[in-house]
Amino acid sequence: MTFDYRARRARLAELLPAREVHALLVTSPVNVRYLTGLASSNAAVLVRADGTAMLATDNRYIEAARGLEVPAVEVADVAGRLAAPGVGIEAANMSVAAFRRLGEGLVPLDPVVELLRVVKDDGELDLIRTACAITDQAFADVCGAIAPGMTERELARLLDHRMTELGADKPGFDTIVAAGENGAIPHHAPTSRELRAGDLVTMDFGARYQGYHADMTRTVSLGEPAGWQREVYDLVARAQRAGRHALTPGAEAREVDAAARQVVEDAGHGAHFRHGLGHGVGLAIHEEPFLGPARTGRLEDRVPITVEPGVYLPGRGGVRIEDTLVTRGGGPELFTKTTKELLVL
Amino acid sequence: MTFDYRARRARLAELLPAREVHALLVTSPVNVRYLTGLASSNAAVLVRADGTAMLATDNRYIEAARGLEVPAVEVADVAGRLAAPGVGIEAANMSVAAFRRLGEGLVPLDPVVELLRVVKDDGELDLIRTACAITDQAFADVCGAIAPGMTERELARLLDHRMTELGADKPGFDTIVAAGENGAIPHHAPTSRELRAGDLVTMDFGARYQGYHADMTRTVSLGEPAGWQREVYDLVARAQRAGRHALTPGAEAREVDAAARQVVEDAGHGAHFRHGLGHGVGLAIHEEPFLGPARTGRLEDRVPITVEPGVYLPGRGGVRIEDTLVTRGGGPELFTKTTKELLVL
Repeated sequence: MTFDYRARRARLAELLPAREVHALLVTSPVNVRYLTGLASSNAAVLVRADGTAMLATDNRYIEAARGLEVPAVEVADVAGRLAAPGVGIEAANMSVAAFRRLGEGLVPLDPVVELLRVVKDDGELDLIRTACAITDQAFADVCGAIAPGMTERELARLLDHRMTELGADKPGFDTIVAAGENGAIPHHAPTSRELRAGDLVTMDFGARYQGYHADMTRTVSLGEPAGWQREVYDLVARAQRAGRHALTPGAEAREVDAAARQVVEDAGHGAHFRHGLGHGVGLAIHEEPFLGPARTGRLEDRVPITVEPGVYLPGRGGVRIEDTLVTRGGGPELFTKTTKELLVL
Repeated sequence: MTFDYRARRARLAELLPAREVHALLVTSPVNVRYLTGLASSNAAVLVRADGTAMLATDNRYIEAARGLEVPAVEVADVAGRLAAPGVGIEAANMSVAAFRRLGEGLVPLDPVVELLRVVKDDGELDLIRTACAITDQAFADVCGAIAPGMTERELARLLDHRMTELGADKPGFDTIVAAGENGAIPHHAPTSRELRAGDLVTMDFGARYQGYHADMTRTVSLGEPAGWQREVYDLVARAQRAGRHALTPGAEAREVDAAARQVVEDAGHGAHFRHGLGHGVGLAIHEEPFLGPARTGRLEDRVPITVEPGVYLPGRGGVRIEDTLVTRGGGPELFTKTTKELLVL
């Protein structure tokens, strides 16, 4: 997949005069990739207000950089090579140490490239759609193997391995598998705890494909669910549906969050849903926009985003259901298509 | 594995008066883990000159944090909760944006906790030894499957999967597999290029085990090597041996680099070995000390470090041989034990 990087840099260049800089020194690896196509852990690109650009990277990536359309120089100190007075820097990315070392005249700026990245073009949506299809397929392929006696870690490895077998670059983030009482911890790291009959098991995982991410969570039941398990599951499923239905271009971020949260609160579980409803996905697994009670701003069209309410009961367990969708005028397009019926394994 | 985190914080506290701060706000995730045992992507710990400490993390990690000995508070803005005038911050870790937001009186400091982390204790060495054993075993287990027709990506996935099956947390970094002409790119990302008879194939990979890293590179030959391939391999093997033999407590970092580099230069390939000889490994895959022509400072005892010379011939291919070792008074202890004879597969 190749993108019109020149057009992206031109759009960035247009934003610079209002920020009173004649160029932006881009050091965030994801932003460098977005603007040039270079995937690396150490590169910088200077984009000038006239739309021209210069790339700097070290000897590990210089051969790849030379295959791109932006002139590239090989240097260890990539930011230092391109820094100059009057140049803006990415304040959220550059360290205090680098900023002090690079000297006078650099202008710390709030995120700029991140604004460009919110609305995706067709090529980006295709990659996210593929990442989501890999994620769905990995879940389907692994489902039959989920059984009592398997550990959380083993299940996480199965999902990870299957995603890469199916063509993922790699897992897009650390896969979460949380069984039974561990399900009450939203970001539980998989352990050697064995799955047992009677557990709810939450899996939060997603493929990265050509740099773009998928994000999906499903909670399944090992054996027939108890009454409280079924009840919590149905509640979260209803909240998730309400969140998805509120996801329209023009909606306020906090309104979408509220649509799902209200369902949970009405059931008396508001205190058990303590994170935001969702986040954008793209070259980063978590990126703008974010859905939460205090999030401002309105959703645009063609924005891939997650909807992931959860209810977490300390000591007992939890349920989270998460999809990746993209906002569309006629209603969101669902990218992760795995069933949201409670699977009883 | 549990460590004496209190003793680590006490050693840190002793370093603070000389830096004219009454506390250090630690925000680097690996440093927070080193000082408290908390593995997270968003936590901060304030260590005061009297040795007391306070931990802050968000709702994803607060349950884990409460199981530790340091008092912990739950908050989204972890650094903001602990920042105060006269407190030192980790300038290499904190972003310019965070520094500007957190207000007056914070004191940017050069790395401090990183100095403590250089010399490892027995428990840390055990974990690195285990990470290296997993890495060796994964190589041994995968070797038989390496054959023409397999792609670079498939081979990388096999290594990654086997490491996690053998107990790794996960691969410690993005595995490199570079076949044929791709071997000339030191940090080549695996592609769909198929391995072919006549290729040298370089694999650079390592397990992470309970947070600690291994790092190993081997180059193998698919079929009988051509004369130039054997020649380059033997050269790199001799350089690597020279580097390992120079690795003694008290040696200067640049002297160790020079010991290996001289061998390559004497053979007329100095221009084809353009990276440093090695780096420390621990909670980070790359950490102090670094071995390179411009690196100052002397090695201490009990420092895990890599020795990894390479020769890269643009358009043709390359060879790199890398071990993880630990410095010892009587000569380095080899942690990665895979043979360095040229394997012909």
